[in-house]
Amino acid sequence: MKKSDYFSAKFENDEFVFLDQTKLPLEELYVRTDDYERIALAIERLEVRGAPLIGIAAAYALALSLKKATSGNYDAPFNDAYKRLARTRPTAVNLFSALDAVKSVYESEKKSGNIYKILLAKAIQIHTEDFEHCRKIGENGLRIFRKKSNVLTHCNTGRLATGGAGTAFSVIQTGYQNGLVNFVYAGETRPLFQGLRLTAFELEHSGIPFSVLSDSMAASLMKDHKIDLVITGADHIALNGDAANKVGTYSLAVLCNFHEIPFYIAAPSTSIDRSILTGDDIKIEFRNKNEILSPSGHQIAPDHYDAYSPAFDVTPSHLIKGIITEEDIFSFPYNFLR
Amino acid sequence: MKKSDYFSAKFENDEFVFLDQTKLPLEELYVRTDDYERIALAIERLEVRGAPLIGIAAAYALALSLKKATSGNYDAPFNDAYKRLARTRPTAVNLFSALDAVKSVYESEKKSGNIYKILLAKAIQIHTEDFEHCRKIGENGLRIFRKKSNVLTHCNTGRLATGGAGTAFSVIQTGYQNGLVNFVYAGETRPLFQGLRLTAFELEHSGIPFSVLSDSMAASLMKDHKIDLVITGADHIALNGDAANKVGTYSLAVLCNFHEIPFYIAAPSTSIDRSILTGDDIKIEFRNKNEILSPSGHQIAPDHYDAYSPAFDVTPSHLIKGIITEEDIFSFPYNFLR
Repeated sequence: MKKSDYFSAKFENDEFVFLDQTKLPLEELYVRTDDYERIALAIERLEVRGAPLIGIAAAYALALSLKKATSGNYDAPFNDAYKRLARTRPTAVNLFSALDAVKSVYESEKKSGNIYKILLAKAIQIHTEDFEHCRKIGENGLRIFRKKSNVLTHCNTGRLATGGAGTAFSVIQTGYQNGLVNFVYAGETRPLFQGLRLTAFELEHSGIPFSVLSDSMAASLMKDHKIDLVITGADHIALNGDAANKVGTYSLAVLCNFHEIPFYIAAPSTSIDRSILTGDDIKIEFRNKNEILSPSGHQIAPDHYDAYSPAFDVTPSHLIKGIITEEDIFSFPYNFLR
Repeated sequence: MKKSDYFSAKFENDEFVFLDQTKLPLEELYVRTDDYERIALAIERLEVRGAPLIGIAAAYALALSLKKATSGNYDAPFNDAYKRLARTRPTAVNLFSALDAVKSVYESEKKSGNIYKILLAKAIQIHTEDFEHCRKIGENGLRIFRKKSNVLTHCNTGRLATGGAGTAFSVIQTGYQNGLVNFVYAGETRPLFQGLRLTAFELEHSGIPFSVLSDSMAASLMKDHKIDLVITGADHIALNGDAANKVGTYSLAVLCNFHEIPFYIAAPSTSIDRSILTGDDIKIEFRNKNEILSPSGHQIAPDHYDAYSPAFDVTPSHLIKGIITEEDIFSFPYNFLR
């Protein structure tokens, strides 16, 4: 496979095919399955990750749960699959919006003949819409650049995290293609190194010059005026603009505030949770402490040490200069509509 | 060996004995040598580390360079050893103050009969003084606690980093012994994990309840009001109080400023560089990029990726609430005397 041919997920021959992202960048391993439980595991293990891609994968998985079901016996397998998938990653709002979109089709169409094909069509539609959202986010994002810029980003928000070109990564890539991005700094993103492993992989494939760094080094780059703007994705946005994203994002937003560097978030409107007013209502997932004690599976501290291991943090909206969606760029004060 | 019997370095039977800190906490391996080159390597490889301990090790190493020298043939081996040791870690001011203290004795005593024994006595004096400095830093540090506190620290500043109980760690331990410390959060300190590997080890041996965390998680702890104060060591302090310490320290100082949490530095007065006015004149060591690409020696990203890898950052003095030395607690504006 040519390096540039990688994809994060596709649906082909009635199977879901995904790139196991835990093996990147040293190995490109694709997994093919029509078992929703395998997809649920892939989401839990972060083989498939990124809020938009989690939603897409969950939609395909929920459709697949009825691939072999016999007529008239749909409710039990569908509800089991729905519950199983909803348990995988509690913070990604896209997971729930995708599951609920499929469920809504299920409820109105479950008497139809080929319910599997109908649900599959919905999953494909969610996938296709996300592809289009990514393109528009990149296009809208061009307006944040005042000059050819050095950009810092965190975690991974590219093709690997979405059904298209990415969210924050789409802005960076579109900016680069338009001569507005000079250089990218990718924070490694402890504990799971999505920046070091995945964003660096995507930057290299896109031909964008970059450097990786440990998360705690961003502050000295900012102090030395090496960063013109910071842009990240988001997993869960409240109506007031408070945004949960990979842990370390809030830290960057505070550092940007201190150094007077604009901090942006890029996310599809599907990441906006219309049911909550502020970030206080976002449930933060805590991960197994071994992700800290054993970096990349390599143990360096005893198992019995206690570790604080939130997967996400919440950035209050007043620290966010703009939220770039497929619709527009929104600014503080944010008042997303229910 | 009983767990609590660990030591970072001692001088015994005309040999320098040190704990190889790169193997901690999973293995406690002591190395015994009378070869200054081996000690220089130990400093470069961070087998021996922590600004005060680097100074102590370098002083013993410089004395050992003349252990086998024959009378009248001292200048060449002494100067070779001095230059070699001065090249090991450019940012630790204690390295140069210790080397220069030994050199000054050498210059005035090199005509004496047993120059090795005379230099050794100086090294022992430097070691003993640091032990006493650590004790006094802990004692002075008691004054920073307004209540029983949750403390966040970064990198390692304990017995492993010094010739005594430590700097910031001595304050934490003395505070704990006096009922003023409730809980300690130890930042893992990427790229070399000194917090996860060494501070956690020392906290456990001291019986202090603690949790480790990835460096980027400190901000959300602060936001959640889980941190009452932050205290770190310093490798190099300018006369105006600007302080270089392990990379990530500056980030914590900015986060403290935003969250209105007091940020302290603890260091012996030997870490104050009387020759520079501000932090702009502190030379920052950049480390091999593999420390980022291969966490703890375990490769997770291709060798050809570029990485930004400063070992230290400089915290401007206005962000430092107090600098605790063996003499006193100093406050902004700092005006250390030449």
